[in-house]
Amino acid sequence: MNTSLDCIPCLLRQALEAARQVSKDPALHEQVVREVLQWAGEMDLNQSPPAVAQRFHRRLREITGIEDPYLEAKTQQNRIALELLPSLRNTIQSSVSPLMTAARIAIAGNMIDMGVNGNVTEADMYQAVQNALSEPFYGEGELFCQAAAKARSILYLADNAGEIAFDRLLIEQLMPERVKLVVRGAPVINDATLVDAKAVGLDTLVEVMDNGSDAPGTLLDDCSQEFRHRFTKADLIIAKGQGNFESLSDQARGLFFLFKVKCPMVANHIMQPVGTQVLAYSNFGTDNGPLALPPFRPLSA
Amino acid sequence: MNTSLDCIPCLLRQALEAARQVSKDPALHEQVVREVLQWAGEMDLNQSPPAVAQRFHRRLREITGIEDPYLEAKTQQNRIALELLPSLRNTIQSSVSPLMTAARIAIAGNMIDMGVNGNVTEADMYQAVQNALSEPFYGEGELFCQAAAKARSILYLADNAGEIAFDRLLIEQLMPERVKLVVRGAPVINDATLVDAKAVGLDTLVEVMDNGSDAPGTLLDDCSQEFRHRFTKADLIIAKGQGNFESLSDQARGLFFLFKVKCPMVANHIMQPVGTQVLAYSNFGTDNGPLALPPFRPLSA
Repeated sequence: MNTSLDCIPCLLRQALEAARQVSKDPALHEQVVREVLQWAGEMDLNQSPPAVAQRFHRRLREITGIEDPYLEAKTQQNRIALELLPSLRNTIQSSVSPLMTAARIAIAGNMIDMGVNGNVTEADMYQAVQNALSEPFYGEGELFCQAAAKARSILYLADNAGEIAFDRLLIEQLMPERVKLVVRGAPVINDATLVDAKAVGLDTLVEVMDNGSDAPGTLLDDCSQEFRHRFTKADLIIAKGQGNFESLSDQARGLFFLFKVKCPMVANHIMQPVGTQVLAYSNFGTDNGPLALPPFRPLSA
Repeated sequence: MNTSLDCIPCLLRQALEAARQVSKDPALHEQVVREVLQWAGEMDLNQSPPAVAQRFHRRLREITGIEDPYLEAKTQQNRIALELLPSLRNTIQSSVSPLMTAARIAIAGNMIDMGVNGNVTEADMYQAVQNALSEPFYGEGELFCQAAAKARSILYLADNAGEIAFDRLLIEQLMPERVKLVVRGAPVINDATLVDAKAVGLDTLVEVMDNGSDAPGTLLDDCSQEFRHRFTKADLIIAKGQGNFESLSDQARGLFFLFKVKCPMVANHIMQPVGTQVLAYSNFGTDNGPLALPPFRPLSA
């Protein structure tokens, strides 16, 4: 998915919010905004939004000298999410379809996104889960259950801290011995890294690797060779979050995208309104991939 | 009121909307956005937002070669608003305080603002009036009535097309022989010019002048000498809309601002939420002006 002209005001707003998150100095905020304006004027719109965001957040870390500006926020998000796990696990175990209930909760966790909403509270998180369990969602639930039943190897691309605790609940339902969890290679926004996987105990449940990249998405060319190999070979790939969708939705191989629609551009792309909970299968290429599933079927919710 | 860093993403969004309003050519949209990004990177934040918008809209007219990109929209807005006048005039005449009812309707008209919402429908306009008549508003109604009773000369600074039809209803309640109506000196966004004053029949009711400037607000330094003279001498000034507020709120002389709060920065400035209908008296200077009214009193709604 390319960066739209409409993404630019939004990236600029994110830049300002991020600058305010890491510093109270108005001169620094202005410096950041002016720098972003300068290079946004020359930016290549054929990149995906996560590629643009990667560049900006690298520069933000350079200007501030802070390696992980969102560390405190991530720690808090993991803590809040972990507290909700015992009761959510009960909800899953007592539901008619534990796998689908866990998938819905994992999608709900995707509202914890500092790129979109800088200030997620415990009440927001609780409310998101309640909504996720009652609201309709858009996608390929049945196909997902079939694919999960067949797959021998599952690559699970995590998105954000906090959210990754909810991912744990879904991974528990997927027979963890088949699952390899992938996190970002370095801190960017509140995206999950190895630290967060450990914080929510996923390192003792599944094999965890990082993708070698500091983009808030999955830019294959920027990822490690090992990751790209796994990406090609996995029977089933579960990609969490808008960033992974924006960067991988044009891939030829089949992927399941689990996310909450948070911006009008993504909403246009999947033809569903902002706020929709999505479990979509995408396979835009001619090669249908290891599972040979049908192409993108947006309407069979 | 200076331009905030938060205004920049919003100005950029407006730039894109304006470009799409005047042309269907994606290459032109991109050119406009890139140019705005370039000069926004170097812009002087000590200017008011209307000064920034003035520069952008001049450039937009240059790039497109269209002198009045919003002509069609303005014509339609005047027409829709005019159709509502007879029944609104009845509402005013049968109300307990015709002056205040007319003021509320004039404030409601301020929602017709292409800089904020590019697509105002008849239903929006009707709804805005209904809301204006039932919702509380913030400000100095009593002071306004007193000032209107005392004033020998009233300068009425119009804001947008469409809205100017509703201004007519307020002017009818102000003894029009005292009123001089001021419109913009040249087309900018959907701001009212002499053409719009004529379209709603105000040219036959009051003396109409233009301020000599193409800013979507009132930048005194950019206005004609005649306008500045009138601005100094008038007993009472009524300034409609956010643009006039943003550009005149720091003036020493007393002004009544009538507008609907449409952005978080203005909301911060007057300490009232977005959506508030405002009839505020402002007199920030030491010279209390011809009416010698008390300073800004935001809480006596």
